[in-house]
Amino acid sequence: MQEELLLTPGPTPVARRTYQAMSQGIFGHRTNRFKALSADIQNKLQPLFGTDHPVAVLTSSGTSALEAAMVNLVDDGDSVVIIVSGVFGGKFADIAGRYNFKVHIYDVTWGQAADPEAFREYLNGIDNLAAVFTQACETSTSVLHPLAELSKVVHDYKEDALFIVDAVSALGGADIHMDRDKIDCLVSGSQKAMMLPPGLAFVAVNDKALGKINRSAHGRYYLDLKMYFKSLEVDYTPQTPAVTLYQGLDDVLNMIHDETLEQVYVRHKNMQKMLRRGIEALELELLVKEEDASPTVTAVKSSPEEIAHIKDELENNYHIAVAGGQKDLAGKIIRIGHMGFMFPKDMLAILSALEDILSRLRNKNYYGKALTAAQESLYEQA
Amino acid sequence: MQEELLLTPGPTPVARRTYQAMSQGIFGHRTNRFKALSADIQNKLQPLFGTDHPVAVLTSSGTSALEAAMVNLVDDGDSVVIIVSGVFGGKFADIAGRYNFKVHIYDVTWGQAADPEAFREYLNGIDNLAAVFTQACETSTSVLHPLAELSKVVHDYKEDALFIVDAVSALGGADIHMDRDKIDCLVSGSQKAMMLPPGLAFVAVNDKALGKINRSAHGRYYLDLKMYFKSLEVDYTPQTPAVTLYQGLDDVLNMIHDETLEQVYVRHKNMQKMLRRGIEALELELLVKEEDASPTVTAVKSSPEEIAHIKDELENNYHIAVAGGQKDLAGKIIRIGHMGFMFPKDMLAILSALEDILSRLRNKNYYGKALTAAQESLYEQA
Repeated sequence: MQEELLLTPGPTPVARRTYQAMSQGIFGHRTNRFKALSADIQNKLQPLFGTDHPVAVLTSSGTSALEAAMVNLVDDGDSVVIIVSGVFGGKFADIAGRYNFKVHIYDVTWGQAADPEAFREYLNGIDNLAAVFTQACETSTSVLHPLAELSKVVHDYKEDALFIVDAVSALGGADIHMDRDKIDCLVSGSQKAMMLPPGLAFVAVNDKALGKINRSAHGRYYLDLKMYFKSLEVDYTPQTPAVTLYQGLDDVLNMIHDETLEQVYVRHKNMQKMLRRGIEALELELLVKEEDASPTVTAVKSSPEEIAHIKDELENNYHIAVAGGQKDLAGKIIRIGHMGFMFPKDMLAILSALEDILSRLRNKNYYGKALTAAQESLYEQA
Repeated sequence: MQEELLLTPGPTPVARRTYQAMSQGIFGHRTNRFKALSADIQNKLQPLFGTDHPVAVLTSSGTSALEAAMVNLVDDGDSVVIIVSGVFGGKFADIAGRYNFKVHIYDVTWGQAADPEAFREYLNGIDNLAAVFTQACETSTSVLHPLAELSKVVHDYKEDALFIVDAVSALGGADIHMDRDKIDCLVSGSQKAMMLPPGLAFVAVNDKALGKINRSAHGRYYLDLKMYFKSLEVDYTPQTPAVTLYQGLDDVLNMIHDETLEQVYVRHKNMQKMLRRGIEALELELLVKEEDASPTVTAVKSSPEEIAHIKDELENNYHIAVAGGQKDLAGKIIRIGHMGFMFPKDMLAILSALEDILSRLRNKNYYGKALTAAQESLYEQA
């Protein structure tokens, strides 16, 4: 009878009220009703991104928004640097590899955040730098990169270089603010901390990036950001939008602002700390050190045998879905998402299951230990 | 209290059961559960397209699928012919214009279907023809082009040229069958006769087109059809799919096959005839002659004053949404959609409203006249 508890780092649970919002009934997107909805969404979306500029909303998954950022902001022959610290950095590199850019890969050990001073040294000698791409949270390792520091390094090196951030698994959970952090282009998707089903993607830009978009000579249509920003001037979309997801977007933005952005970030940080303290009490290893850890996802390390056993038990006997490792980390970690429509009680649910699984597996008594550590962490912070 | 009756040629009404299907709860797309859903959808989607090949499902609006067909099936320097008979043909031409193709436009008078014999003459002298693009139904005029005949003309002229059809406002309403009609690539979207909200698009190809896709050297990522067809071999998607829309897609395909494809086409044809006979009884003009008319949408002509009055009255006093004309036809027509989750009773609703509007406007008694003509048409056909 129990519903699956979806603790993967995307997709994430969607609230019942949001499903209802998405079931209100479809209507035409070339109408004043749609314009009013789109304008209302902009008012609530911009503070979330930390910008006063319109945010382009694409009907597609996050990958297309990453590709759009790349193709609209980089010209053939330009140098781009891609910070690769896991699978999603690799995806950025794959996309870049399809184009005629000079692609420079800055490799970061998986499980670590990029070090701004080491990155400053790396940049030296890269000519004609157009843009630096990074993830905010590298979902495959659960690291959160120091965006404001990296941005400063990029702009110190070349003032007009663009700092472009993929925040698909961070925005709405981690405290990211375009203007404050001097991010030139911030990209995200609907299905993670934004609490929606997949199907929408977002591209926010500052004046510098918008200027580049308007000067770009790429030959795109669906991913032509010029058309999106031009349509936004009159609250329209150039292509047919996923109207039901817009209705849902309006609802989740209300939820976020009702809770307040500040409190949303505190809740995510609280869940992260509860989980980390609980994991330690269970004598499991955390892949990422405290200061590099994302508030939206946590990677847990153990022997391949324990990892396989834990994942299998969670899914089959406790109705809890988590994610495994990818590529180099396959079989070595489990990843527990704690972003979006998730709450401290959900951390208790998984820690309770892990206590039981490990007590049996190791023939050792963990009952109450992880829960107590989590509980202490939560109320200590309050 | 009355809900709006959405008689636009897209978006179209979504059934309550489909909203429920889309509210079942989100789940991961890298799971066996998703693979099973995707495989099940393929089994039901292929007969609708009239193919034994997998049909690529893109998370995006129809335009991206049109662009994908173009960029994956045409190489730089190739000649393409685009049949332009309205706004959506023009959109195809706009997309093609972004690429390094030799673009040839075959203009058809708006409101008429392409004439296969005239098109045969036009093709003479076009060298290096790679592909011919056409709409099935040109939504802006309500014409249905003779696909099987046009296909024969294309393949007679050059056997390996591709015949590529945009069936966004036709598939699921008009009797189109890739294999029977010798269509090499058939593109559609979710939000018209497919009875879903916008957000999914479809690309079906035969062996010849798939071969071309696999040899293509374009530099795309999100619109790389190779990746979609390769993923389909194991029932996956290369990018994050719009899972809730997949759940809805599964439901509407069940609805279509429960009714049977044959009966779905009969229902659409019946609605078209009811409407056309009713429109004639109201002494309004039909833009398109009987043999060129699409079973999914009908364009009605009158003086600009009457058109404006009718559209305004329908929307404001009868809770019925219809579409106006676009570009050259702006202000000259209204377009009434009758595709997807629509039924003969919906034709009675709009004809009843039109009888009232025109009786008052023209000070003439139309009461019962359009309804009787529609009713006679419906039961004559049964």
